[in-house]
Amino acid sequence: MIITGSEITAAMDGRLKDELRTLNGHVPQLAVVRAGKDAGSLAYESSMMKRLSVIGLKVRPYTFAGDISGAEFGKAFAAINQDPSIDGILLLRPLPAQLDEKAVCGLIDPVKDVDGLSPVNMAKVFMGDESGFAPCTAEAVMEVLRWAGINPAGKRVAIIGRSTLVGRPLAMLLLRQNATITVCHTQTADVEKICRNSEIVIAAAGRAKLVNKKFIAEGAVVIDVGINADQAGNLCGDVDFADVVEKSSFITPVPDGVGTVTITVLARHVMRAAVCRRRAFSA
Amino acid sequence: MIITGSEITAAMDGRLKDELRTLNGHVPQLAVVRAGKDAGSLAYESSMMKRLSVIGLKVRPYTFAGDISGAEFGKAFAAINQDPSIDGILLLRPLPAQLDEKAVCGLIDPVKDVDGLSPVNMAKVFMGDESGFAPCTAEAVMEVLRWAGINPAGKRVAIIGRSTLVGRPLAMLLLRQNATITVCHTQTADVEKICRNSEIVIAAAGRAKLVNKKFIAEGAVVIDVGINADQAGNLCGDVDFADVVEKSSFITPVPDGVGTVTITVLARHVMRAAVCRRRAFSA
Repeated sequence: MIITGSEITAAMDGRLKDELRTLNGHVPQLAVVRAGKDAGSLAYESSMMKRLSVIGLKVRPYTFAGDISGAEFGKAFAAINQDPSIDGILLLRPLPAQLDEKAVCGLIDPVKDVDGLSPVNMAKVFMGDESGFAPCTAEAVMEVLRWAGINPAGKRVAIIGRSTLVGRPLAMLLLRQNATITVCHTQTADVEKICRNSEIVIAAAGRAKLVNKKFIAEGAVVIDVGINADQAGNLCGDVDFADVVEKSSFITPVPDGVGTVTITVLARHVMRAAVCRRRAFSA
Repeated sequence: MIITGSEITAAMDGRLKDELRTLNGHVPQLAVVRAGKDAGSLAYESSMMKRLSVIGLKVRPYTFAGDISGAEFGKAFAAINQDPSIDGILLLRPLPAQLDEKAVCGLIDPVKDVDGLSPVNMAKVFMGDESGFAPCTAEAVMEVLRWAGINPAGKRVAIIGRSTLVGRPLAMLLLRQNATITVCHTQTADVEKICRNSEIVIAAAGRAKLVNKKFIAEGAVVIDVGINADQAGNLCGDVDFADVVEKSSFITPVPDGVGTVTITVLARHVMRAAVCRRRAFSA
């Protein structure tokens, strides 16, 4: 069974629009902060802005030159951070080399940190505390599982990739749901065998078509977090979809898979941030 | 081969004493904060204070009644936190029920947080950033591996237990060293088999003698983080030592295993905190 991102987001959108109506006219606003013109960032920014406006949320882009100084960027970022009209902040990365990404992430107000980049939110994800924001991509994977009715509790889950944005937080979110997680990476001796022994395989390695049917047990669930270009220049995931689709019980494609859900999770986080901030004001 | 904590700490102690001499007479001071009389905390406090004074560090106990109010405790804790004569803070847990453990941990100055309880240090461990403090027990396991000359890179490591103090940070520290980690817990379907497929097994489940030889591949490395009482009331680990010792290539006993190393890691953290704080003052 192929699970597309658009069928999941269709259901999520409806709930988000309902929730938006309960805000009595307040329209949550996301600040999208970008310095420079990274191609991946530009593509994500563009599709994200379209989707959020369809749902009915405001997006305000803050775009800076690629050669902005650390001091200037820091000052501008602090102003966005403190602006009461901004409910959520999305910092597009990578930042240009002269900017200290870690330091900037450390400044983000945790209640506006809708992509889970601040230490407070990372620590919460790490501890299994659901009151913070997890990175949207990691949470999108959990959303796919939920939507497909797959309870990870007690299941062997192989995660390929150990990034701060996907592999590591996903391991923590899955542990919280009682999965048995194995984290594989470039130095893992036998990724194929580990994946073949797993009931759920999540590919977040950033390598085009790495996962073929030799990695997959009959009837396994396969979730593809990768966004790559194949040799012909076409968008593809970390999974060789054509090779794996028959053997899997559930599989997400690329495009129209986890990436699509990620943007809707971002919208949900912006909504949640707005609701929490309004509660804090009225308290 | 049996690896005892005391042989590891003997080597670590020498280095710590050398380092102490470079501080030109400054003696690093650890504040040990305890509310109530939890038996485990009392035992740990007592052996820890002895060991740290042997190394030559100062330990200042701050002991509060078990029924202290949250406001009172918070005020006292803030004063310890801000006291410039204190280099490191060890908060003994569990705290009495009326105290909000998470909130207190959130207050600890990250540069004094020698047991890695503050969100800033947790986030660093989570991201693989070694500039912070990891929980001493998790780091003690890494120290045992280092001392025994076991490089976890590329190895299959099973961790039994997913606590914030051991299982989770250990998973992150091992990933940082390129191990392939599997985290097992009470809801894991076949812990025995997963462990038997692993080259290194780390037991941090808190269940007396859970791990017997059926869990262990011939020649595997077995590290026991558990501290329990067996049916006869004797101290024992999570590993059935007598059953496993012949089959393993390396094994740590209980007592005189990881727990002993943990206290020496704590001493090293106090030293490091003192050195960092003095650098910050003189800068």
